[in-house]
Amino acid sequence: MHYLKCISCGKRYEPDEVVYNCSCGSILEAVIDLNEAENVFDGNNPSVWKYESFLPVKKAASLQEGGTPLYNVNNLKKHTGYRELYVKNEGENPTCSFKDRGMTVGVSKAIELGMKKVACASTGNTSASLAAYSAHADLTCFVLIPSGKIALGKLAQAIIYGAQVIPIKGNFDDALDAVMKASKTFGIYLLNSINPYRLEGQKTIAFEIFDRLGEVPDRVILPVGNAGNISAIWKGFKELKAAGITDKLPIMTGIQAAGSMPMVNMYKKDLEELVPEKNPETIATAIRIGNPISWRKAINAVKESKGVMESVTDEEILEAQRLLASKEGIFVEPASASSVAGMTKLLAQNEIDRDEKTVLITTGHGLKDPNVVIESIKIMDPIDADMNTMRKVLGE
Amino acid sequence: MHYLKCISCGKRYEPDEVVYNCSCGSILEAVIDLNEAENVFDGNNPSVWKYESFLPVKKAASLQEGGTPLYNVNNLKKHTGYRELYVKNEGENPTCSFKDRGMTVGVSKAIELGMKKVACASTGNTSASLAAYSAHADLTCFVLIPSGKIALGKLAQAIIYGAQVIPIKGNFDDALDAVMKASKTFGIYLLNSINPYRLEGQKTIAFEIFDRLGEVPDRVILPVGNAGNISAIWKGFKELKAAGITDKLPIMTGIQAAGSMPMVNMYKKDLEELVPEKNPETIATAIRIGNPISWRKAINAVKESKGVMESVTDEEILEAQRLLASKEGIFVEPASASSVAGMTKLLAQNEIDRDEKTVLITTGHGLKDPNVVIESIKIMDPIDADMNTMRKVLGE
Repeated sequence: MHYLKCISCGKRYEPDEVVYNCSCGSILEAVIDLNEAENVFDGNNPSVWKYESFLPVKKAASLQEGGTPLYNVNNLKKHTGYRELYVKNEGENPTCSFKDRGMTVGVSKAIELGMKKVACASTGNTSASLAAYSAHADLTCFVLIPSGKIALGKLAQAIIYGAQVIPIKGNFDDALDAVMKASKTFGIYLLNSINPYRLEGQKTIAFEIFDRLGEVPDRVILPVGNAGNISAIWKGFKELKAAGITDKLPIMTGIQAAGSMPMVNMYKKDLEELVPEKNPETIATAIRIGNPISWRKAINAVKESKGVMESVTDEEILEAQRLLASKEGIFVEPASASSVAGMTKLLAQNEIDRDEKTVLITTGHGLKDPNVVIESIKIMDPIDADMNTMRKVLGE
Repeated sequence: MHYLKCISCGKRYEPDEVVYNCSCGSILEAVIDLNEAENVFDGNNPSVWKYESFLPVKKAASLQEGGTPLYNVNNLKKHTGYRELYVKNEGENPTCSFKDRGMTVGVSKAIELGMKKVACASTGNTSASLAAYSAHADLTCFVLIPSGKIALGKLAQAIIYGAQVIPIKGNFDDALDAVMKASKTFGIYLLNSINPYRLEGQKTIAFEIFDRLGEVPDRVILPVGNAGNISAIWKGFKELKAAGITDKLPIMTGIQAAGSMPMVNMYKKDLEELVPEKNPETIATAIRIGNPISWRKAINAVKESKGVMESVTDEEILEAQRLLASKEGIFVEPASASSVAGMTKLLAQNEIDRDEKTVLITTGHGLKDPNVVIESIKIMDPIDADMNTMRKVLGE
């Protein structure tokens, strides 16, 4: 039987309580009874719910999420000098981002609690994923967004999945504040990043990497926005060790965008508390987050694993996006490319070693944000279809 | 050992020949030695290359395509009265369409033949997929497109994967003509729909359905554009039967868009030859094809299986797209939604039976064409975040 525990004061909450954070103000995490966890790591049929015995909820709403490819990236290895390098591409989930892993667990929890309504404040991948699972589970889904300039492209998924999109007068923090108040007052289950059950689903990324490789890699490199994913994946590896399935842990390496790097600042300046970035700016919208909710968990993950954090510029991100697509045929959204950009930068700085067996996590599909590519497209002038002209363009 | 055979005159071609169609003008199909085919249908780890013993090529370029979900669509069952209804969602492939199944085999064939350059004429999913596999396999990829109004959104994938996009003065047929000539003259491997190896990859959709269900369904309903997929899936089921793995075949049911329905006309008017649609028009761009290359194979599939073809309007397609997303959390591009729209229409006309175990194929992810959704988005006016206002919108 699992329970929730405050990561700061240790206060315990039972699983039938509708609770998101601790009365002390800090955040919660699920404590799993690993005596019940089954060693199912046989390399077959990976998926979030293959690892149900490690999860605090029974499957109630699934779109067959997880089981994403772990690519052995041979061209990128040649390019970088790595001997063992992999890309775990989370863009190949049902709504095209890793958020689906968390939402299948979070929405299953909503069903277990008997909730009929769910909500989040989000303008991106979180709202798309929550809306999809709500549709599947026949729950009413509210997506609160800040008023003002609304990027409709990012909301297309949430809307077609049937979510009720509600603009709140103010900025993103006002929308987040509103959805937290509304969820407490109107019997709505809150599925923003603060919800600890979402991280439980996301930790299965660690399980799948172990299941595919048959071992724990030396290093995992991934983008950091709200800092939930790095926390979740670290928790997954720690649980594998605690369950006696492996005795190795990876080094966690978090990458942020230079215009939105409060976690990198915290790490590099060795701060005790996060100093939020008031005006986060980056082309990598999925990690354009100035006040990451899971900063405590994430900084623990980096410190415990003797990891590192680094920032990359938008230019480095776009270059890495193009590199991964044109060398490997893997098209990811800009935030995801930050892991590739971070790897390149840390290699150049001699802070990581190309002899380490390394896994890069890419978190969302490139089709999530095609405008970044479309805006840079230059196409040659039309040519005549005669053989002489074509020979110049297509021939030797 | 396999060979290629003309489906009209029966002429045989050997696998080391670079050949796309028969000297008689008709098209080719691969003939597989089913004595070598292994019964691997154990329900585990479906993927294109799980069925390698049924394929005429060895794996040489893979992005871990296939293994797409077969969704048991409970909400859609309630909505339609079906007892057994499934959606096979091909949008969850690496480049987000079923084309990846064909390209992994087609590009592997290019490598086997020692070709260094590949090409297609396409403005959509075909070019995206070919470009991705070319990047992965380190081949030079040319994508020929008609000059004039170019929809950049559809080309974003091909371009970031590193394809050379070449506008040809003229319309789509001119670009297709140019790429066929160029491929013969300049040692470029042609991977348009005429290439019979692509259909070999696509037939694994049938294998995966059988592998997941443990049996052949009564009916398969799918969109028809170039008519390759219906031909390929039928071939897959026939091979399962010929190999002695099952003795059942499904009824093949093809759906076209009303503005682009040459196959439906051929079927309904019982024509001997296809009459191309000169100006195909539909919002479902992936099946906006007036002169489907695989019409001979497709009409055989429908006739042999005692199947049916029907057309649906753009309005019916958009309604079906919204239905599937909001009832099941499955967001597909408009062409894919035509299978759902066709099912609804054929049910209403009593031409199909809700007691049949039925699989709907959806061929591409909704993020392939988000503009269809974005253009129809209406968002309510911003509200204040006070409790009284929020109660009206979010509360009971």
